[in-house]
Amino acid sequence: MSQLDHKSEAWSALFSEPVSDLVKRYTASVFFDKRLWLADITGSLAHAAMLERQGVISATDGAEIRRGMAQVRSEIESGAFEWKLDLEDVHLNIEARLTQLVGDAGKRLHTGRSRNDQVATDVRLWLRGEIDLIAGLLEDLQKALLDLAEKNAEVVMPGFTHLQVAQPVSFGHHMLAYVEMFARDHERMLDVRKRVNRLPLGAAALAGTTYPLDREWVAQELGMEGVCQNSLDAVSDRDFAIEFTAAASLVMVHVSRFSEELILWMSQNFGFIRIADRFTTGSSIMPQKKNPDVPELARGKTGRVVGHLMGLITLMKGQPLAYNKDNQEDKEPLFDTVDTLKDTLRIFADMAGGITVQPQAMEQAALKGYATATDLADYLVKKGLPFRDAHETVAHAVKAATSHNCDLSELPLAVLQQFHPQIEKDVYDALSLRGSLNARNTLGGTAPAQVRAQLARHRARLAA
Amino acid sequence: MSQLDHKSEAWSALFSEPVSDLVKRYTASVFFDKRLWLADITGSLAHAAMLERQGVISATDGAEIRRGMAQVRSEIESGAFEWKLDLEDVHLNIEARLTQLVGDAGKRLHTGRSRNDQVATDVRLWLRGEIDLIAGLLEDLQKALLDLAEKNAEVVMPGFTHLQVAQPVSFGHHMLAYVEMFARDHERMLDVRKRVNRLPLGAAALAGTTYPLDREWVAQELGMEGVCQNSLDAVSDRDFAIEFTAAASLVMVHVSRFSEELILWMSQNFGFIRIADRFTTGSSIMPQKKNPDVPELARGKTGRVVGHLMGLITLMKGQPLAYNKDNQEDKEPLFDTVDTLKDTLRIFADMAGGITVQPQAMEQAALKGYATATDLADYLVKKGLPFRDAHETVAHAVKAATSHNCDLSELPLAVLQQFHPQIEKDVYDALSLRGSLNARNTLGGTAPAQVRAQLARHRARLAA
Amino acid sequence: MSQLDHKSEAWSALFSEPVSDLVKRYTASVFFDKRLWLADITGSLAHAAMLERQGVISATDGAEIRRGMAQVRSEIESGAFEWKLDLEDVHLNIEARLTQLVGDAGKRLHTGRSRNDQVATDVRLWLRGEIDLIAGLLEDLQKALLDLAEKNAEVVMPGFTHLQVAQPVSFGHHMLAYVEMFARDHERMLDVRKRVNRLPLGAAALAGTTYPLDREWVAQELGMEGVCQNSLDAVSDRDFAIEFTAAASLVMVHVSRFSEELILWMSQNFGFIRIADRFTTGSSIMPQKKNPDVPELARGKTGRVVGHLMGLITLMKGQPLAYNKDNQEDKEPLFDTVDTLKDTLRIFADMAGGITVQPQAMEQAALKGYATATDLADYLVKKGLPFRDAHETVAHAVKAATSHNCDLSELPLAVLQQFHPQIEKDVYDALSLRGSLNARNTLGGTAPAQVRAQLARHRARLAA
Amino acid sequence: MSQLDHKSEAWSALFSEPVSDLVKRYTASVFFDKRLWLADITGSLAHAAMLERQGVISATDGAEIRRGMAQVRSEIESGAFEWKLDLEDVHLNIEARLTQLVGDAGKRLHTGRSRNDQVATDVRLWLRGEIDLIAGLLEDLQKALLDLAEKNAEVVMPGFTHLQVAQPVSFGHHMLAYVEMFARDHERMLDVRKRVNRLPLGAAALAGTTYPLDREWVAQELGMEGVCQNSLDAVSDRDFAIEFTAAASLVMVHVSRFSEELILWMSQNFGFIRIADRFTTGSSIMPQKKNPDVPELARGKTGRVVGHLMGLITLMKGQPLAYNKDNQEDKEPLFDTVDTLKDTLRIFADMAGGITVQPQAMEQAALKGYATATDLADYLVKKGLPFRDAHETVAHAVKAATSHNCDLSELPLAVLQQFHPQIEKDVYDALSLRGSLNARNTLGGTAPAQVRAQLARHRARLAA
Repeated sequence: MSQLDHKSEAWSALFSEPVSDLVKRYTASVFFDKRLWLADITGSLAHAAMLERQGVISATDGAEIRRGMAQVRSEIESGAFEWKLDLEDVHLNIEARLTQLVGDAGKRLHTGRSRNDQVATDVRLWLRGEIDLIAGLLEDLQKALLDLAEKNAEVVMPGFTHLQVAQPVSFGHHMLAYVEMFARDHERMLDVRKRVNRLPLGAAALAGTTYPLDREWVAQELGMEGVCQNSLDAVSDRDFAIEFTAAASLVMVHVSRFSEELILWMSQNFGFIRIADRFTTGSSIMPQKKNPDVPELARGKTGRVVGHLMGLITLMKGQPLAYNKDNQEDKEPLFDTVDTLKDTLRIFADMAGGITVQPQAMEQAALKGYATATDLADYLVKKGLPFRDAHETVAHAVKAATSHNCDLSELPLAVLQQFHPQIEKDVYDALSLRGSLNARNTLGGTAPAQVRAQLARHRARLAA
Repeated sequence: MSQLDHKSEAWSALFSEPVSDLVKRYTASVFFDKRLWLADITGSLAHAAMLERQGVISATDGAEIRRGMAQVRSEIESGAFEWKLDLEDVHLNIEARLTQLVGDAGKRLHTGRSRNDQVATDVRLWLRGEIDLIAGLLEDLQKALLDLAEKNAEVVMPGFTHLQVAQPVSFGHHMLAYVEMFARDHERMLDVRKRVNRLPLGAAALAGTTYPLDREWVAQELGMEGVCQNSLDAVSDRDFAIEFTAAASLVMVHVSRFSEELILWMSQNFGFIRIADRFTTGSSIMPQKKNPDVPELARGKTGRVVGHLMGLITLMKGQPLAYNKDNQEDKEPLFDTVDTLKDTLRIFADMAGGITVQPQAMEQAALKGYATATDLADYLVKKGLPFRDAHETVAHAVKAATSHNCDLSELPLAVLQQFHPQIEKDVYDALSLRGSLNARNTLGGTAPAQVRAQLARHRARLAA
Repeated sequence: MSQLDHKSEAWSALFSEPVSDLVKRYTASVFFDKRLWLADITGSLAHAAMLERQGVISATDGAEIRRGMAQVRSEIESGAFEWKLDLEDVHLNIEARLTQLVGDAGKRLHTGRSRNDQVATDVRLWLRGEIDLIAGLLEDLQKALLDLAEKNAEVVMPGFTHLQVAQPVSFGHHMLAYVEMFARDHERMLDVRKRVNRLPLGAAALAGTTYPLDREWVAQELGMEGVCQNSLDAVSDRDFAIEFTAAASLVMVHVSRFSEELILWMSQNFGFIRIADRFTTGSSIMPQKKNPDVPELARGKTGRVVGHLMGLITLMKGQPLAYNKDNQEDKEPLFDTVDTLKDTLRIFADMAGGITVQPQAMEQAALKGYATATDLADYLVKKGLPFRDAHETVAHAVKAATSHNCDLSELPLAVLQQFHPQIEKDVYDALSLRGSLNARNTLGGTAPAQVRAQLARHRARLAA
Repeated sequence: MSQLDHKSEAWSALFSEPVSDLVKRYTASVFFDKRLWLADITGSLAHAAMLERQGVISATDGAEIRRGMAQVRSEIESGAFEWKLDLEDVHLNIEARLTQLVGDAGKRLHTGRSRNDQVATDVRLWLRGEIDLIAGLLEDLQKALLDLAEKNAEVVMPGFTHLQVAQPVSFGHHMLAYVEMFARDHERMLDVRKRVNRLPLGAAALAGTTYPLDREWVAQELGMEGVCQNSLDAVSDRDFAIEFTAAASLVMVHVSRFSEELILWMSQNFGFIRIADRFTTGSSIMPQKKNPDVPELARGKTGRVVGHLMGLITLMKGQPLAYNKDNQEDKEPLFDTVDTLKDTLRIFADMAGGITVQPQAMEQAALKGYATATDLADYLVKKGLPFRDAHETVAHAVKAATSHNCDLSELPLAVLQQFHPQIEKDVYDALSLRGSLNARNTLGGTAPAQVRAQLARHRARLAA
């Protein structure tokens, strides 16, 4: 009789009573960690293959384990597998079923490992796969934003600082700002991936093992970039979970900023965009409503992911080495972060295609806030005024235009010349929205020529 | 044909296409908010009764709604109710079924309300009930700790500051420190309850309603202490959720501190307590292990609750009035906080009964760190030395004892007198653990007499 | 020679070397905790008076301490006091100076207390005073908002949900939503105050003391509501700091929401308000800019306070009893939270008086989004349609109005009657902004009559 | 008269009144951002050199700016520079003084830039330098830990999981776990540095500029790895601050874990280490105390840094593009995070040299908890038992040893053979601490041979 048979009575012969039902429910993880089943089987097969290569288990045992695991896998895939609370977690559930199927060979699988290194390996394998999916989704979203930017490279909208009209910008340029953010997120995810993709297996409970394991072979077999070099660290390190969640929080911060703008732009006072009906919902009471539910909910979900980051840091703060049960709490926040990120990125890439820009509304708004005042200052600088004096001169001009309730470009030349005698007719080119836009033609600027150059750069980058 | 029939096609006649499946899944809440079903029905029945009283709906409609709701309730209780993703949330699911059952009367239920005030009412009703359960569990835990304290009022353990042995304390006194914390938590929960227990219903979408509602009657009917006095605030306020989660975070901080101590005390280097086997688990690799899984996991779960608090604050930061879809994200963190708190408090009250104190180990440890050095200083003060000089004198004595590798109480009188001539034979009373313990007999001090007085005070308080 | 003389060499005779300079700087708190000086002196005087009453120190010593402390106080007030890093903190700085001034009487002051209970007492006394100031500022802000609400009770603006035009609301009503929030904040501050205002002094290091202290007399002397009943809890409890910071975070969440709206309303696309120039700043480059710096910065400062809350919770998580040095880290976040709150509340009360409402812009905006569609549905309900059918009917009408690019109120009666034959001429009353506004005349609704009733209630409450 | 002369009256001619004093104090940043002065001057000089190269300003202006800035620099270094609240921030203070010194040339410096891109550039330049210092300190700390590990490679201590004795480990191995953590922190800092070291300058206010700037030249001049490619993103991106603070939070989590262990090990119940007196402090009341203040305070400071991370994320959540005043709040948390990290790393590297290990106490503790039980199971596996059965067999043996109150190695052979007949005399090698230690000789395991191999690897890595 082995230890696993005991589980429903007591942990082992050492225990005088079984775990109470309340405790069983409180400490069990199987109902959320079963999501790791494929990583668990993959890790176990690599471990078993190595044990066999190293002569720790026989070829027959190795074959039995492979046969049994194939059966377990197909049972899980078909939904026939019976997950048991009594067996605590995904690892014991799978191992117990394997042992049912193949007997002693199954009992030999756990040789030279512990659940401590096993779970760390499973989570890393699983997360690596999810990061790859997320990286792909970040690229999809960038592509969708590039399409939107390309279609609207020439559309003028008011650029805002402090939500006050500042200078005219191209809508395409505005979209490219988000492409930069999501490109940085992609970069960060790949940096995180390096540190996720290291092998704890072989650290055993905390101190390494007495069996002649070949950890580097297992790492290679599992496509990992290296081996965790210290067994105590290997079983207790959750940096990768925190680092991933921090990177995810930044993704969500970007999503929240984009959402904020979409919501603003869809409000009647802006009217800058429409979002296709399939991304909006109505009201149970107000028959006229089309609400931007998706960006609102995404903005709200930022809190969820940030909360998980804070939860994970709190979890690890002050824990002594090595593995402590606290660490079991790493999974749910991590899983939920991954789900939230994938759903959100997918829906945003999709929604970007459903955004219709309203160029007249944008242009109208750009005409409201003296968006070309800086251009007038720059015009004066080119006539020889120091910038600080030019700035002051324009402030007077704006004051006059405000009192006439008109734009700078609507002031007659004679009036403009009162502010500075060198102002000539060509000032009206500088004062037009399009003139202002085209003039900002340096690297990273908003001129459509720059926008097109950036589009080409991003397309090439994403095609690589 | 009414609006609800449309839901699977499009929101209403206003929408040219139905919500995409991805969006439907992203925005739906029914799979977590169905937990509110009883509060939803309770709130609806009170609303309907008031509409009938006010003549907004007929007595027949009122009766039909009551009949239909009774049916809905029994379907949900029996598990026969079919929850539909297409109907988004608990509110529309219940209302749609009601309308199926009772026709036009069902369609009239939503008169003068909106989902915005409805969901706020449901969450408050539900949370009020949960707070009452949590308050009860906080009392149960206090009682369990009082029992433990009473049993061990005379047991001496080393009191620590900076985890260095400081002064002898009674184990019962130590337990009473946690009773204080959980008593404050109880106080705070009741303060939160006041602000939870106010009625948003009648605020409708955001502006109030054109129907002659009697909101105060509904509040009374639902046992609420008052009515939310501003409709915009009523539908957008989530203070109560944040405030509850902040109070819950403090509960968990206390649990984490107690857990930290239980884990320390159970470690072989302390050996101060045993925890009954039913609260511990073994290791998959190390056959000798009995791990304090419950306190470890509880300490870890602190992160979860704190994360929810941070998530909820992030959610609300910077939201313009009134209701935004972001707010739907209030539910999962709130639900999980409640579940975590209830499970943790229940299991700790239970576990307190499974703690066995090891008095010898505690006393042994108390003899190690010159725990009575302060008593020697106090002894000298009573002989007339200013406290600051006495402190310095005792530092010399401790240095000598350290070099002799013995306790202060083991130094011969002649040696002690070298540090101060007025030291006499009665010094050994002051230097004994029990002498030290009994001497701290002022209000809140560790003397067993004080512990018993506090026990009596707490018993009376909890019996009230 | 006493312990304090040693500080620049080594802690006491027990120590073989002085604290390293790096450590001294790392662990010293005097440069921030000197802010507690008045609370420290107040607490010390009460402690000394009690020691004298109880016969622990002589009347002469008591008089000397009072004389010395008066001198210390005047030195600090005049700026003549020399704060020393070597003396670590505010407590030792004051005590050392006192001892310089009055000799042995000064050395007797610390009898029966420890810095552990002393610092907890100081922080509580100080925070109680700050809470009272904050409570006053919360009332000032409410009054400023009431003035603004009163002036604009009849001004119609679009009420938003999901930032989409929802229903017309009174600007005064909108302001009252914030009055509710800040009133709740005030309530919460008073709840926190109860738990702040308890006396730890007399807990000594952790276990109580051997001197016959009268803690209840000290509590009364200091205006405290009670005595901390357990010495271990008394010195290690920082709940009150967390609870205060949580309440402060809610204040800042409300400020952030109000700020978000002010920023929106000041943007050219809304143009709902102007903020007096003295609350705005310009741009170093764009001459036309007037930026709402104050609300933006306040919105940003929400992060600061929430960060402090997170920091304090992290600080306390998992700390074993009793006092640990970690707790020294409670002060800076607490101090900065208090400063941020006071500055922000003061500036907002001030700024409220500098807000000018633009009624035409608001009314214009309210006409854009079919804000009275719900009123049409309610109109139909009054004609006998179930609400759900009325909702659907109005959706058709809105669709038609959209295609005619006009408001519902601009559709001819004949057209409206196509949607429902019972629509009559009086429908245009329901469809007007003012008609809609006045119709929401139930408790908490937006009708100006309700607004005035609420104003009266708030005025009475704040006058009480 | 230029704009800067106005500042004490009003922002510019556009403003009808000066900023109120309260607002001035609330919005000013000069008292904390003056720390950026050197980065500000460095950035300005590169900008001016480029303007000159591009012919935007004359060679004379360029020379004047260099001359003036040299003067400003020396004034700041000598403390003679007068910082003015009226001039808001470090940028305007320096520019105004420059203009005083060199007239119009100074007014021309701001051509083609804005404070929005200027401050982003300053913060990045400054942070890059700080990251380099921090990276160096992380290496110093690793080296100090390597020295400690090397000295104690052969020292046996109990390895813990769940704070229960698990298996014997080498103290050197335990120290190497922290080397791994701080090595990962170093890696992360360099990843962050890449994204910090990009140039926003030239983005101007938000849209780029009309002057023919050469941004790539400036980037090269400043040693930056690239140019921010989108002007809107350039001025509003604070990812780098969040990412840095997240990496810093992980450093502090590692510090908190190490601190927790140092505190445990210094407590009398462990007695595993001593920390030199210069890193400890005493008590104002308990004469015998030597408290591990440094690790406690460091553990507490984790909260501070995590709080700053939370604050910065909250700050950025939901901000629309481009620059908003909220962003000014990025500085204080960033500055304090840098200070905390540098002080803490420095003091820990120093303190590591003051740790003295107590090998007997560690060995004694390792003998308490059946630390070699896994070795007995492994012994049985080598005799042919499946691991799961061996585990169960050993549980019985441990139970017996517990009832005899002795270690497994103290059970007579005959008794051991009752649990399994194949147990032979050589079992006692497996059951000894040193036998167990040496047996874990696979990559990353605790065997001293492995520890020495890791030491060599780390030394080579850090020498590279």
